[in-house]
Amino acid sequence: MCRWLAYSGTPVFLKELLFDLPHSLVDQSLHSRLGVETTNGDGFGIGWYDETETPAVFKSVEPAWNDENLRELASHVRSPLVFAHIRASTGTPVQQTNCHPFRYGRWLWMHNGSIAHFHDVKRELMLAVDPSLYSEVRGSTDSEAFFFLALTFGLENDPPAAVERAVGMIEHVGHRRGIELPIQMTVATSDGDRVWGFRYSSEHRSRSLFYSTSIDTLREQYPENPLFDGLSDETRVVVSEPLGDLVGAWNQVPESSYGIIQHGQDELRPFTPRPPK
Amino acid sequence: MCRWLAYSGTPVFLKELLFDLPHSLVDQSLHSRLGVETTNGDGFGIGWYDETETPAVFKSVEPAWNDENLRELASHVRSPLVFAHIRASTGTPVQQTNCHPFRYGRWLWMHNGSIAHFHDVKRELMLAVDPSLYSEVRGSTDSEAFFFLALTFGLENDPPAAVERAVGMIEHVGHRRGIELPIQMTVATSDGDRVWGFRYSSEHRSRSLFYSTSIDTLREQYPENPLFDGLSDETRVVVSEPLGDLVGAWNQVPESSYGIIQHGQDELRPFTPRPPK
Amino acid sequence: MCRWLAYSGTPVFLKELLFDLPHSLVDQSLHSRLGVETTNGDGFGIGWYDETETPAVFKSVEPAWNDENLRELASHVRSPLVFAHIRASTGTPVQQTNCHPFRYGRWLWMHNGSIAHFHDVKRELMLAVDPSLYSEVRGSTDSEAFFFLALTFGLENDPPAAVERAVGMIEHVGHRRGIELPIQMTVATSDGDRVWGFRYSSEHRSRSLFYSTSIDTLREQYPENPLFDGLSDETRVVVSEPLGDLVGAWNQVPESSYGIIQHGQDELRPFTPRPPK
Amino acid sequence: MCRWLAYSGTPVFLKELLFDLPHSLVDQSLHSRLGVETTNGDGFGIGWYDETETPAVFKSVEPAWNDENLRELASHVRSPLVFAHIRASTGTPVQQTNCHPFRYGRWLWMHNGSIAHFHDVKRELMLAVDPSLYSEVRGSTDSEAFFFLALTFGLENDPPAAVERAVGMIEHVGHRRGIELPIQMTVATSDGDRVWGFRYSSEHRSRSLFYSTSIDTLREQYPENPLFDGLSDETRVVVSEPLGDLVGAWNQVPESSYGIIQHGQDELRPFTPRPPK
Repeated sequence: MCRWLAYSGTPVFLKELLFDLPHSLVDQSLHSRLGVETTNGDGFGIGWYDETETPAVFKSVEPAWNDENLRELASHVRSPLVFAHIRASTGTPVQQTNCHPFRYGRWLWMHNGSIAHFHDVKRELMLAVDPSLYSEVRGSTDSEAFFFLALTFGLENDPPAAVERAVGMIEHVGHRRGIELPIQMTVATSDGDRVWGFRYSSEHRSRSLFYSTSIDTLREQYPENPLFDGLSDETRVVVSEPLGDLVGAWNQVPESSYGIIQHGQDELRPFTPRPPK
Repeated sequence: MCRWLAYSGTPVFLKELLFDLPHSLVDQSLHSRLGVETTNGDGFGIGWYDETETPAVFKSVEPAWNDENLRELASHVRSPLVFAHIRASTGTPVQQTNCHPFRYGRWLWMHNGSIAHFHDVKRELMLAVDPSLYSEVRGSTDSEAFFFLALTFGLENDPPAAVERAVGMIEHVGHRRGIELPIQMTVATSDGDRVWGFRYSSEHRSRSLFYSTSIDTLREQYPENPLFDGLSDETRVVVSEPLGDLVGAWNQVPESSYGIIQHGQDELRPFTPRPPK
Repeated sequence: MCRWLAYSGTPVFLKELLFDLPHSLVDQSLHSRLGVETTNGDGFGIGWYDETETPAVFKSVEPAWNDENLRELASHVRSPLVFAHIRASTGTPVQQTNCHPFRYGRWLWMHNGSIAHFHDVKRELMLAVDPSLYSEVRGSTDSEAFFFLALTFGLENDPPAAVERAVGMIEHVGHRRGIELPIQMTVATSDGDRVWGFRYSSEHRSRSLFYSTSIDTLREQYPENPLFDGLSDETRVVVSEPLGDLVGAWNQVPESSYGIIQHGQDELRPFTPRPPK
Repeated sequence: MCRWLAYSGTPVFLKELLFDLPHSLVDQSLHSRLGVETTNGDGFGIGWYDETETPAVFKSVEPAWNDENLRELASHVRSPLVFAHIRASTGTPVQQTNCHPFRYGRWLWMHNGSIAHFHDVKRELMLAVDPSLYSEVRGSTDSEAFFFLALTFGLENDPPAAVERAVGMIEHVGHRRGIELPIQMTVATSDGDRVWGFRYSSEHRSRSLFYSTSIDTLREQYPENPLFDGLSDETRVVVSEPLGDLVGAWNQVPESSYGIIQHGQDELRPFTPRPPK
């Protein structure tokens, strides 16, 4: 399993998200509290949006806690929309092409969890990927196959529907092969404008997922805390586990639901897989 | 393109094959003479057979000329049957799972050349791989897909027929998509007992491939050369390009043919792709 | 801090030491019980002796639990004398030249612990290294500087005396700079014939170190345990923490002492640093 | 030997310097024309200044032509002052701490060439480094030792004098040990404001070094060339070898001289090593 973080709001240096907080993502790479594994040392990746067309992606097979280049970039890259992911492999090789976030055009995607018995269903799921996309898959993980299924089902037009159809397909294929609980997932995806965060699992006991309380509420609650200075009211973080212990700062994403971080009011809605017809 | 070497005969330390000769494989990684690229610095791999069940494989994404672990192993590993490969990527990522030799059970496989427009034919070729083997493919190269096609067509029972059928399939799929010259290849494969070396290309102008003159002939020709001391008469090397300039030591494998290195008389036969029925 | 293992006895495949036991060294890389850190993921190294002149060394900056090449070698390399070390950096960079074991001629050296405030005493200690050895230091760790101090003080002739003088020097330099507790250490060193294991710290509360009970005793105690089949009576392992929970199998090396594993009776003696005159 | 590039002027994306030009630095990593080696594949590094206090540094042991992270950063990082270096090792290990540019505070440093017989003079040169700086040396190269000598001799106050004194010391120590030609060098250094580029060797046949013609001259000469659009008149590049074949664009830095790129008129002056008194 893995840990991830999606940030949207006032531009920040990556180090503020990855290193500076008491239970930052890099701290979680060594000492995860809520993950299946305490160590998430099987590579990492970050993605960020800036003024250029395509989001940047930086990936490494070293543990995040060791990577000197990550430390450098974290002090020099500032972005209003950041994805970060630390990996604990569920069996597929530790190589850059297997590190999250995955990218297609302006879209980023990262996943915590797994497709159960992926080895047994991989071929069938890859055949369900649109033929024009098949050769774009660069690595060998279940997470990237899942991304390309979502792209096949229209991620770029209607992300929630596409993810619901992708999950419906994964459950359909799994069930047909006698796999009782085909998927376990939290997922983040973005087009650089909005961020979608999903929490779902076939057994309805999904990996943890949290979103930050709105900044204006936190500012009222903690008028002296400098952490919220200079952050816009629209700033929001979604994380596998809280980045600190601040009471009231973190809210669990409910089971089988997804949130949308966007300009104006963010939203939280139920998530229902859509089986293939 | 790449460079490779297959050795069969009296057990030798890897360094004798990889480092010690004037135009050794590691020298070729920086200064190939006959390759499409002079530099073959996109990772490397070695495979060797010993008394254990499965051949050993050691792979790295570093250039061979730099890898300190390769130097160490080369001085300590001795084997009667060695594969070595230095890679010049034709586009797929530089990662260990894309380094040759590939392994399946007791079989090793390495390839120089490429499947033309692999991006366009990958899906169709991967669908031709036996479903039970599909999830065993670990990397993303044309060379590994080719290996799994050969396995699908019976490599373990009749290697020449299997490779002829795999190439026939690759040409069939390519031609149907308007690719005039679908494949360029030299290939080595082994089960730990025999070694097969193939040279073929759709345009019948294949990458270079050489086999060493039999040791007893060389010993007669060079009675003072210590290189041949202690080597059995059956010792043979197959290489992308000669390891030195010794006159009479290297013989070109003819266009569209394959050789078998085995106990007793080695063989050289014509290679004819077999299109799918 | 780190974890290490030194094996001497009947030739074994590395995998038996590194992977197969319930609390094997690779398991300790993720879940150390007695180490200062539970994770030892900052690179690793193995060294082994064979019929060649110089021991082999294989090092990697990847965590041991991930390294596919380590898995390969572990199944194919068999040796009667093996060093293995997993690193948890105390600040110096994660790079192969900082991985243990360090080698000089036929000597291997590995260390768990640290020279306190190494940054402040490094220059003075490096000046105490014999000038002819200065440029042989390849990395930047305290552990390698310690090794070269021991070599300077005669490691190759009288290992215990040399280590006692090196530690005396480290304490002398440290004390002069106001460092109360200059060293914390367990150390293993070998010339391929004997193995010396040291346990000492300035505060006399040294990192854990264990040696295995003699095989004939274990065989008597566990007549049905296949683990001891085929192991000579002289086989011995020294480890930072036990490789399993077998009652009676592991004995703590006493505080401020060292052991010698050798043909005939092994020995255990007090360790006393010798300050420079 | 190595290849390097220093850019100062209108902020550009790194890709314009590293990838886009016909004989860009990444092209030079595979096909250097003027270097001692055609291949510069032993790691690389880039450094750049931005609005933060300390320049950023990104280093990798992979060849530059392969590194996907370099490609990513090159498309997303924009800077007015960039150092880039591709390494061809002269013997010291390929590891990030040996990649240029080296950094100290706001200073960057990179070097092409070598200190002759560095192994023999390393200790003496390292003793000449200011004791307070000794432990800041992180790698094992001659180039970094040279940097710390220059820092010792006042690089931060008077760079030309400091480099002249450092070279004087290197020649003094070398000559005393019977080394006829102790140093071969082109060096770039910067504090984020100005850039100094040095060309010198004991034999007065130094590695090549070029500076670009002033942009206003080039714009006059090539009024239609879009390359110069949007570049300020003060923009300047210093390179080991020209990035393309544009006639009139590149000028050789004279033997035994150095240039200063600065606001207002750049300067070119003779370089004379200053032996220690």
